[in-house]
Amino acid sequence: MASPVAENATHYSASRGIMQRLRSLPGKLLDTLAIFGKKLAKIAKDDPRRVTHSLKVGLALTVVSLFFFLRRLYDSFGDNAIWAVMTVVVVMEFSVGATLGKGLNRMLATLLGGFLGAAVQKLSTLSGEKEKPVLISLFLYIIGALITFMRFVPQVKARYDYGLTIFILTFSLVSVSGYRDDQILDLAFKRLSTIIIGSFIAIIICVFLFPVWSGDDLHNLLASNLEKLGNFLEGFGTDLQPKHSERSFAKEYESVLTSKTREETLANFARWEPCHGQIRFRHPWQRYLELGNLTRQCAYKAEALDVYLRSLILTSNQVGISIKDSCQSASLECGKALKVLSSSVKSMTCLTSTTAKARVAKAKRSIELIHSLLRSEPYWEGVELTEIVAAAAVTSLLSDVIICIESIIEAVDELSSLAHFKRTVHSPPVTATNSKLQPLAREGILKPVLESHELRYCAVTINDGYSSTLTKEIAKVLHP
Amino acid sequence: MASPVAENATHYSASRGIMQRLRSLPGKLLDTLAIFGKKLAKIAKDDPRRVTHSLKVGLALTVVSLFFFLRRLYDSFGDNAIWAVMTVVVVMEFSVGATLGKGLNRMLATLLGGFLGAAVQKLSTLSGEKEKPVLISLFLYIIGALITFMRFVPQVKARYDYGLTIFILTFSLVSVSGYRDDQILDLAFKRLSTIIIGSFIAIIICVFLFPVWSGDDLHNLLASNLEKLGNFLEGFGTDLQPKHSERSFAKEYESVLTSKTREETLANFARWEPCHGQIRFRHPWQRYLELGNLTRQCAYKAEALDVYLRSLILTSNQVGISIKDSCQSASLECGKALKVLSSSVKSMTCLTSTTAKARVAKAKRSIELIHSLLRSEPYWEGVELTEIVAAAAVTSLLSDVIICIESIIEAVDELSSLAHFKRTVHSPPVTATNSKLQPLAREGILKPVLESHELRYCAVTINDGYSSTLTKEIAKVLHP
Repeated sequence: MASPVAENATHYSASRGIMQRLRSLPGKLLDTLAIFGKKLAKIAKDDPRRVTHSLKVGLALTVVSLFFFLRRLYDSFGDNAIWAVMTVVVVMEFSVGATLGKGLNRMLATLLGGFLGAAVQKLSTLSGEKEKPVLISLFLYIIGALITFMRFVPQVKARYDYGLTIFILTFSLVSVSGYRDDQILDLAFKRLSTIIIGSFIAIIICVFLFPVWSGDDLHNLLASNLEKLGNFLEGFGTDLQPKHSERSFAKEYESVLTSKTREETLANFARWEPCHGQIRFRHPWQRYLELGNLTRQCAYKAEALDVYLRSLILTSNQVGISIKDSCQSASLECGKALKVLSSSVKSMTCLTSTTAKARVAKAKRSIELIHSLLRSEPYWEGVELTEIVAAAAVTSLLSDVIICIESIIEAVDELSSLAHFKRTVHSPPVTATNSKLQPLAREGILKPVLESHELRYCAVTINDGYSSTLTKEIAKVLHP
Repeated sequence: MASPVAENATHYSASRGIMQRLRSLPGKLLDTLAIFGKKLAKIAKDDPRRVTHSLKVGLALTVVSLFFFLRRLYDSFGDNAIWAVMTVVVVMEFSVGATLGKGLNRMLATLLGGFLGAAVQKLSTLSGEKEKPVLISLFLYIIGALITFMRFVPQVKARYDYGLTIFILTFSLVSVSGYRDDQILDLAFKRLSTIIIGSFIAIIICVFLFPVWSGDDLHNLLASNLEKLGNFLEGFGTDLQPKHSERSFAKEYESVLTSKTREETLANFARWEPCHGQIRFRHPWQRYLELGNLTRQCAYKAEALDVYLRSLILTSNQVGISIKDSCQSASLECGKALKVLSSSVKSMTCLTSTTAKARVAKAKRSIELIHSLLRSEPYWEGVELTEIVAAAAVTSLLSDVIICIESIIEAVDELSSLAHFKRTVHSPPVTATNSKLQPLAREGILKPVLESHELRYCAVTINDGYSSTLTKEIAKVLHP
């Protein structure tokens, strides 16, 4: 058993511990606050529009509070002015599309719900004082259940979910309120007009003060998804050194895999948005979703490809290395094709799909090279097959990626004509009849060729897959 | 130019066309209604809980309307009773978790927002009549902007988004309302109590009348995702005949690829739900999300595998066929392992992971078989390699799938211990010391073995990969 002295000492040290902990409490609290502050700073830095949006909401609240402070406005609306405040708080959303959708839903639903509620009240009043509550309850039950069930229809939920809630709300309020006919009309008018005023304050501030367009967000999301995927494939084509095994480029595209829901939400909002910039009325948002799905299909293959990186690095035999090189060049071309498509979508310009097609054609040739290599039997004697299994898998996956990219090219082509992408001026092809020299937009190697000790022409190798056909043409231009 | 008669005839036929179209209008309207009705019927059939939920909302509305019809209740709350109706309409959601979350958010936010609003009013009143509106507007601006910005923090948004909106709403209403101190307290009490009553009506009806638990939905979603993936891999192992090229089993798992957002939403709701059935307090919902992510990783590989189905069917050479058979058996075992895991999660029972491990071990042996086949060089002379590239790719992808399944087994193991899955009674292993014969749970072949014209023992081949070790053991049991 412990002596009283020792017990006392324990007691003392325990209470001292508590005291210390209490004393360190403000410090800990400050630490927690600092961490939270850093988090907030990061959120603001990631998307500064969030700060703007918060300030816009503050402004909208201040504007709507004028209703209460300007006596003349308050007198005409009375307590109904609270509906304007409620509307501003509830309707104001981050993007124009979401705010417009909610505002229009709220106004229309209040009108219709109020109308139906008044009709039900009138009908029930005709039936007699005693039956009235029973009848109204019955109507409430039926309409409440029906409208709630309607909210499960996917197309309705996507666009009118909020409206249906407000419809039930207004219908219930008006039908149970028990006002007399003349009262009800006055009330309905005041409430509807305050809701309209509130919605308009929210919409106007949202549209005219640093607007955030869901359509633009969707547009940029698709372009950046294509770019991320392009970066991955490009990195796969060049970055196979073991020192890059941390593969910072590899994990960037993972968000592409799970962006489906976000794309759908943005498209739903975008449908409410009016024309702005290059976005016209009835912009083909459905096509954006299809393009997004194709991009994801491609990303699934990329995800499967990811695993083979390390196996491929370890390949040491001659055949494995030849396959690897062709795989890498195919991947590089695929990545470049995707990035061309991405910049075409991002800048909303046509044309570049021909460049993308050339890239894909080049990638296909690399894959064909591997197939012909595999077909040349004598090459294979003495090679252990386990070593090239990974390379073979990559070849197959890359073929799939190429098929995916071809359908993405088609989708972007269709999108660009439906969404009226800008047409850039085509630079006319370099031909013998075109005497003016075209600037070389592509990298290439110029090599002088001597024929019987005289400079006859320059062999031009352009890193483009077209070198052979172009060489003579350009040579003619240089020495007509 | 057309003659007047011909013109008249055209006119006549045009108006006749319009008449016909008008006459067919009711028919078309009926058709549209019929299509919409069928759609609704399908929605109801897909998940009958939707119908129950709609009826529950109707019931809640009817119950809350009693506030207006029972004169004594109405007198004590007055017009504030509309807040009870509003609360019921807005708070009542499909699942218990969503309703509880919204209800608690609304009650707490109303309390805190009202308190802060009253404090700001009091403070502004002290400053003088003229400065009061300016001060209140300033507070509105700052608090509105601050709270709106807080809604962007992901963790806050997941759980308290609705609460923050209601906080801004109540704060604005109370601070601008301009009531006197005694009025404000009375109003705040009445409004808060009607909101509490409304929330409780919604919560009670939601919890006690055919409750829909988000936790159960999440649980079942994960189990069904594992099963879908298992079905795909199993079907891939058995169903390779060209007549099955429509591959009904193949596309079933695609929903797995995009279920991430749904899983996260369900987990957020599930965190609000109290214990029920086997779900205890502080159920490890985070682990469910991790398991979901691993399942998706596996589904990405399956998506890549999908393409090789047709290539593999076309394989005709001897080596290709041997690889194909091993691939199929590996896939079959993987599929069975996933289905074992799925039924373990679904029924919340432990144990079965050992069976899953045995299945995975068997799949691994099939892959090893392929590797040793590829290593046996003499086999390979005269075989065209292009024909086995697809099979090689499948081998590699299946190895990845196996790695994925191993991590899924680990995740399920951890989940089962954290979530207190039921332990089933282990059947003791069949050994020589165990004299009582165990019923054979697995299929097998019993073959009598004669030694010098006398039945000595039975050779038992069990389709389990353990035949060789078990044969003698069981033989000893049969002839001790």
